[in-house]
Amino acid sequence: MNSPFVKPTPAFAASSARARLAPVTIERRAVGPRDVLIDIDYCGVCHSDLHMVNNDWGMSAFPMVPGHEIIGRVVTTGAEVTDLVPGQRTGVGCLVDSCRQCEACEDHLEQYCAKGFTLTYSSPTRDPGGLTFGGYSKQIVVDRNYVVKVPENLDPAAAAPLLCAGITTYSPLVHWKVGPGMTVGVIGLGGLGHMGVKFAHAMGARVVMITTSAHKGEDARRLGADEVLVSSDAQAMAASMGRFDFLLNTIPVPHDFNAYMMLLKRDCTMCIVGAIGPTANLNTAPLIMGRRTVAGSLIGGLKETQEMLDFAGRHNVVADVEVIDIATINEAYGRMQRSDVKYRFVIDVATLG
Amino acid sequence: MNSPFVKPTPAFAASSARARLAPVTIERRAVGPRDVLIDIDYCGVCHSDLHMVNNDWGMSAFPMVPGHEIIGRVVTTGAEVTDLVPGQRTGVGCLVDSCRQCEACEDHLEQYCAKGFTLTYSSPTRDPGGLTFGGYSKQIVVDRNYVVKVPENLDPAAAAPLLCAGITTYSPLVHWKVGPGMTVGVIGLGGLGHMGVKFAHAMGARVVMITTSAHKGEDARRLGADEVLVSSDAQAMAASMGRFDFLLNTIPVPHDFNAYMMLLKRDCTMCIVGAIGPTANLNTAPLIMGRRTVAGSLIGGLKETQEMLDFAGRHNVVADVEVIDIATINEAYGRMQRSDVKYRFVIDVATLG
Repeated sequence: MNSPFVKPTPAFAASSARARLAPVTIERRAVGPRDVLIDIDYCGVCHSDLHMVNNDWGMSAFPMVPGHEIIGRVVTTGAEVTDLVPGQRTGVGCLVDSCRQCEACEDHLEQYCAKGFTLTYSSPTRDPGGLTFGGYSKQIVVDRNYVVKVPENLDPAAAAPLLCAGITTYSPLVHWKVGPGMTVGVIGLGGLGHMGVKFAHAMGARVVMITTSAHKGEDARRLGADEVLVSSDAQAMAASMGRFDFLLNTIPVPHDFNAYMMLLKRDCTMCIVGAIGPTANLNTAPLIMGRRTVAGSLIGGLKETQEMLDFAGRHNVVADVEVIDIATINEAYGRMQRSDVKYRFVIDVATLG
Repeated sequence: MNSPFVKPTPAFAASSARARLAPVTIERRAVGPRDVLIDIDYCGVCHSDLHMVNNDWGMSAFPMVPGHEIIGRVVTTGAEVTDLVPGQRTGVGCLVDSCRQCEACEDHLEQYCAKGFTLTYSSPTRDPGGLTFGGYSKQIVVDRNYVVKVPENLDPAAAAPLLCAGITTYSPLVHWKVGPGMTVGVIGLGGLGHMGVKFAHAMGARVVMITTSAHKGEDARRLGADEVLVSSDAQAMAASMGRFDFLLNTIPVPHDFNAYMMLLKRDCTMCIVGAIGPTANLNTAPLIMGRRTVAGSLIGGLKETQEMLDFAGRHNVVADVEVIDIATINEAYGRMQRSDVKYRFVIDVATLG
């Protein structure tokens, strides 16, 4: 199995019916020849952790150790791992394995693995019978191919959310070639949105924060937005029609996205990274009348995650975080559910007893 | 004004409340220096003609002469027209004017004109107070820039639908680079769909007709489809997941398109050209899980319409048509509404008294 687990975290203990079972002990797997054993320093708290703990998606396996925004230092490596040394700062994101043979894996896009990737926690391992356990934990053992190097100049706690929120926004910005001379709209200012603003800004684009909440404007500017567009202001929306080269839609819940489409120039794309599942009735008129597209994007591959971290190191891009004691995780979950966090909780794993 | 109009067509007289007004006489505009006067031989009957006659879209202006799939021969040209001669076979499609200055017009994409194009009929002219009149008519006067040359080897009646159904399907196939080695699905077998099959086949792609009606399979094969996929066959649909490089969705009415999305490979597109307006609840999961996109496309620009006709000439691609007498137009509208046409009605304008 994929990570050590000594006792259920408070999150697990409080949030799930199955969590009321007695504590269980889980052994971490031995460090294989291609593996890396990491001492975890920090782990980000992703909104999906809450969904997984509550089994909102019907795919949770218990017992569970959540956490897929992991920052730590190498303890030991297997014999075949030649490019990581003990003490080196590393990260682990959403994936710890994939088939490694399909076209997507060969294209370094493990997140689209045709045979299905292995999530960092609550996911069956490719060896039958195993289950993965995540980063709310002292240590983790991960195959070298799914470990990334984290630049030493980045604050490690603030770097943790790069492993999920960071790559989820960086990847579509790169894929749709965001750069200088482009006007990019980031829709929604949460964990993903605030990273989208920072990355798009660092890439040299003109960044417009598109939000329903006018009061978020000041903070968006601090993060790197050049402008704020309040989406409930019909006049401002009308005045912005056809202005945007790319829209990154980070709203995490079903919502009517059609009004945003007319903001795009001809032949441009809105990419949805937040709301997964049925969302709203698609009005095809803005698509047909300007050859516009609606797309989706899922995290990023391991190669691109490394590139993202290197980019973040060069541009000193990290998340805005609130570091918490593991004992307060349930409170943090409640606040996250109420969007009362700027913009990511990160667990100081030293507080894990 | 843009075309002659002697008396309301039967379609007009029977289908609209306002058509019960007395006949009116409309003078065609004088042939200006950049204009072409065309004797119309054939005019295709597009499904949108029916919507316009019935004012389904609330944008119809009366009196109306429908028709935007026009084939005819040059009678005279204005002094500045140097590349067309009397007797030459020409075509007029959906557009007869645009601003000619915006980025789209400069990119030869007049169909996305930022200031709004002028439709071939029932559309205000750029000179205030004028109205355009279409191809159910003996003659039409059109600016040279909006007239295309029609290869003489093509059957003129069967070539008429190329001006709308043809370019509407050709343009997205070219834009998304359809060619040999690709598997293309054409969804829906009507006026647009049958042109999509023919063009995709002529471009060298493997063409799969995707239809709800198994009985359409034989005809689809005759038109150039290599395979037929019946979309109501859940097993066949599941077996086709991830097979397609491009989907051309020609279904003309609101419909749930989400099941088609999983047919696409990673990073591939379904382009909607039929159903305009609210369509169905968009499920973002197939988009996010494979970076797939939903797009739209509108007819094509004039330059591309000429390229399409040249391509059609080289590959002998025309529509399957049923040539009708104008006196039967209302019956034809009824049959078109019941999808009882293979695959396009074309008016023999010689029958117009």
